[in-house]
Amino acid sequence: MTVKVITVGEKVLVANEVKAKENKDRLDKQRILTINIMSSPGAGKTSLILNTIKLLKNKIRVSVIEGDVASSVDAEKVNAVGIPVIQINTAGGCHLDANMVAPALDDLPLEKTDLLFIENVGNLICTNNYTLGEDKRVMIASMPEGDDKPFKYPAMFADSDVVIVNKTDLQPYLDFKMDAFRKVVTGLNPDVIIFPVSCKTGEGVADWVKWLEKAVKDKKTKKVI
Amino acid sequence: MTVKVITVGEKVLVANEVKAKENKDRLDKQRILTINIMSSPGAGKTSLILNTIKLLKNKIRVSVIEGDVASSVDAEKVNAVGIPVIQINTAGGCHLDANMVAPALDDLPLEKTDLLFIENVGNLICTNNYTLGEDKRVMIASMPEGDDKPFKYPAMFADSDVVIVNKTDLQPYLDFKMDAFRKVVTGLNPDVIIFPVSCKTGEGVADWVKWLEKAVKDKKTKKVI
Repeated sequence: MTVKVITVGEKVLVANEVKAKENKDRLDKQRILTINIMSSPGAGKTSLILNTIKLLKNKIRVSVIEGDVASSVDAEKVNAVGIPVIQINTAGGCHLDANMVAPALDDLPLEKTDLLFIENVGNLICTNNYTLGEDKRVMIASMPEGDDKPFKYPAMFADSDVVIVNKTDLQPYLDFKMDAFRKVVTGLNPDVIIFPVSCKTGEGVADWVKWLEKAVKDKKTKKVI
Repeated sequence: MTVKVITVGEKVLVANEVKAKENKDRLDKQRILTINIMSSPGAGKTSLILNTIKLLKNKIRVSVIEGDVASSVDAEKVNAVGIPVIQINTAGGCHLDANMVAPALDDLPLEKTDLLFIENVGNLICTNNYTLGEDKRVMIASMPEGDDKPFKYPAMFADSDVVIVNKTDLQPYLDFKMDAFRKVVTGLNPDVIIFPVSCKTGEGVADWVKWLEKAVKDKKTKKVI
């Protein structure tokens, strides 16, 4: 029974890669930097997007795709700050895939977009198996989840270009050891960039935004990013 | 493509139900109260189990099955306090299923067990679709994840007998509105029992343990629980 699931999964993954390549080609033609944001539930994906929009507004044109099992709570928050946003509800599915993203691209003003955030479903396991057409994968680890998460969800940490460690404002009340966390994450993924931030206080967000602005610029000038 | 996955999923779910019934019959015969513990990553499943063992030790005989994508970090913690434990690694699978649990039962001293905890993989989406043979489903919501999680993961909240709200020690530093959370959860699930706890300070854990002791007793005396 388990074997059945895995076999079908592999077929699905190959088909997904084909569609993801189509999405990527489309976004590359328009030179839109596309970021797939992944994390466990409540780690701060929408908060990071909203904080980033605040610093980038009037400089870089942002659009957003929101992925959730149910509700449009997050899309409404993005819409409230005047950013084009499409909500995908997966109806029980635990990750976005490239086929879900394709029609969302039709409904966004891509010709007026420099940076596209795709907020994935809150899940540290399946999301990283499905490429959506993104340039970069950004995962958020929330400090209250503990510093042992890289041991337990290694694939997610290994597959991410950037790891944002959010909720640093809670550090004084937690047993999270940043040095130990950093050591394990870079062991899994030597090229990873780690940004500790607090989306609540804004601490550290500017460093992430600086990295992002450079990546948007690089994508515009067609450099390999 | 999406349709394919769903179709196979349904077949798998039906087959899982059959195996889960076998597990349940086996555990019922031995009158072992079996609890399936679910939550997102880092919400405190293992901490809750360890806190509970501390209060129950010498009164109720506990065994544990630990489910994780990778590592045996949690099983080692349970083993360190002298409790029989089996680790299941799902090798990428985002939930336990009844077939994974069956051989773990073979390896546990069931004849010396009153209470079996099955700690599921950290995931708020797929875990609740797979019955394992449990009597009760307990989910943990971690306060730092935010009070909007019931909107976004409604099935998990609707399917749980008990919702533990963990990390209440962080409440002074969070915007978590307990009343609003409680209202939405009971709207989804009118029969749910909610226990606010802090596995760090121990606050509230005794209430949960009291409920659990009664459930163990009810199972022993063959009442419908």
